Amino acid sequence: MTFLANMDRPRAEMLRDKFAKLMPETTVVLADEPFAKSNVRYMLTWQVPEDIKTAYPNLEVIFSLGAGADQFVMSDVPEGVPIVRLIDDGLTAMMQEYVTMAVLALHRDLPGYIDNQRRQVWERVTVPPPTRDRRVGVMGLGELGQGALRALAPFGFPLSGWARSPRKIDGVTTYHGAAGLAPFLAQTDILICLLPLTGETRNILNRDLFDSLPEGAALVHVGRGQQLDHDALLAALDAGRLRAAVIDVTAPEPLPAGHAFWSDPRILLTPHIACITRLETSLRGICDNLRRHQAGKSLRGVVDPELGY
Amino acid sequence: MTFLANMDRPRAEMLRDKFAKLMPETTVVLADEPFAKSNVRYMLTWQVPEDIKTAYPNLEVIFSLGAGADQFVMSDVPEGVPIVRLIDDGLTAMMQEYVTMAVLALHRDLPGYIDNQRRQVWERVTVPPPTRDRRVGVMGLGELGQGALRALAPFGFPLSGWARSPRKIDGVTTYHGAAGLAPFLAQTDILICLLPLTGETRNILNRDLFDSLPEGAALVHVGRGQQLDHDALLAALDAGRLRAAVIDVTAPEPLPAGHAFWSDPRILLTPHIACITRLETSLRGICDNLRRHQAGKSLRGVVDPELGY
Repeated sequence: MTFLANMDRPRAEMLRDKFAKLMPETTVVLADEPFAKSNVRYMLTWQVPEDIKTAYPNLEVIFSLGAGADQFVMSDVPEGVPIVRLIDDGLTAMMQEYVTMAVLALHRDLPGYIDNQRRQVWERVTVPPPTRDRRVGVMGLGELGQGALRALAPFGFPLSGWARSPRKIDGVTTYHGAAGLAPFLAQTDILICLLPLTGETRNILNRDLFDSLPEGAALVHVGRGQQLDHDALLAALDAGRLRAAVIDVTAPEPLPAGHAFWSDPRILLTPHIACITRLETSLRGICDNLRRHQAGKSLRGVVDPELGY
Repeated sequence: MTFLANMDRPRAEMLRDKFAKLMPETTVVLADEPFAKSNVRYMLTWQVPEDIKTAYPNLEVIFSLGAGADQFVMSDVPEGVPIVRLIDDGLTAMMQEYVTMAVLALHRDLPGYIDNQRRQVWERVTVPPPTRDRRVGVMGLGELGQGALRALAPFGFPLSGWARSPRKIDGVTTYHGAAGLAPFLAQTDILICLLPLTGETRNILNRDLFDSLPEGAALVHVGRGQQLDHDALLAALDAGRLRAAVIDVTAPEPLPAGHAFWSDPRILLTPHIACITRLETSLRGICDNLRRHQAGKSLRGVVDPELGY
């Protein structure tokens, strides 16, 4: 049973070592070593190889190297071969850490304090309201969105969520669909974007959306870069509609030198590090899924090729 | 029953309004209005008035306007009059927010990312270890220290604490006294100082202490400014003993212009805002204590004049 680790050599070797212990019955092959493509039944990869439809007749499952699958061109994927997202408690934990840090940073005026430090000004920015008066809303209620909500719950923020289809989550006011978006936004002081990238969510963080938020709201963007209209964000900051933003994803990445986000004191920018795939921790999930597949059970985290997530 | 609100007028007026609803039997007087000092039985103040020993013969309780009492000169306080710390769920919640933000910021390399943004560099700083491999230790296990530990627990950091005397806290490895300090420090990757200011804790964050931490540790200082040796911190950062610090308190405050902390990219500096007294939320605790006192019950949060906290 052959598993192709299609990634940089250090991580691929680490994967091979781990599999030797966790699943010794599996033969791990590395992309830059000779191997028989026709033997490959499983593949862990960021994007599909060019010859995937012709050279891999026995491929059964594609494991995505990311929490999303929007990096795949679906028409290049062989029909009937499922793509499985990286389901990794480590990823959820990292996102919980980042989102909690970002929400608390916005709640406690950290962008303003960073700017004060730069200007050598010892001055309070605001007296923040109690968390019960700061409403936090999450767009996207998948594994990561629900994880973020769980992490924020102990702090006492009123929590809400929005997704494409209806969801029920304890302690969270939920909204859904196009009709639910404006009411959701109207009651959100700190907005977190954790949506997958699809045709519907491309450019969703635009002027209309910002105009629907309460005056002085704040944004945490940890979805995908293509969801955010950069000019609309800057205009919303200038207009006072938004007071600050924590941005982890941009389009393009890296953000070009000289881009306004780099030097805007209202924006705290990080280079797509909210979730970093730690293969050590995600391998367990992949092995679980391999065993499920071999036992004839359904896979966890299969991507819907129509929806793209 | 007269209660002196000895503080700036806007907050004192707010207090008077709140007391009118919460404790209408109490007469609130303001420091800048005429009132009979001999009638004052309770006083809410940051420091004691100069004439406190001669002009306030009926004073029964001094309520501190801070979570600590180190701003009081104990020899100026009339004998037998207890000082009560501000016990305020709002303060504990604010400290939990700040400490969680600071610990996550250090765990996730935020000082490095702030510096990267300033230099327009799109680059990962580190791949942070899972929280189970990042040990967090709190010095000072009073209300705020224990609150901080509760807030950090869900993230999975191994937690420990150090205090003057033995404490038992579920899920926290505790150390105490002079003999326990070095073993506590040797297993602390992120150190949080929440100690009260006393003769013993003055200058406690010094070179010896930093030398006892593991290589590459980090510091969150939210105790009192006089506890930190600034030169020792800078030397520990230069030597790599510490990799970063979040500093909320300094001596003196405000930090003078040109001080090295302002411009050091390894230091995230905030102007003593971890806890901001929101009178709205702390008044409830003061009223509770007034009622306890009037019912002949013991007061909560009385400062030990010997210990100073």
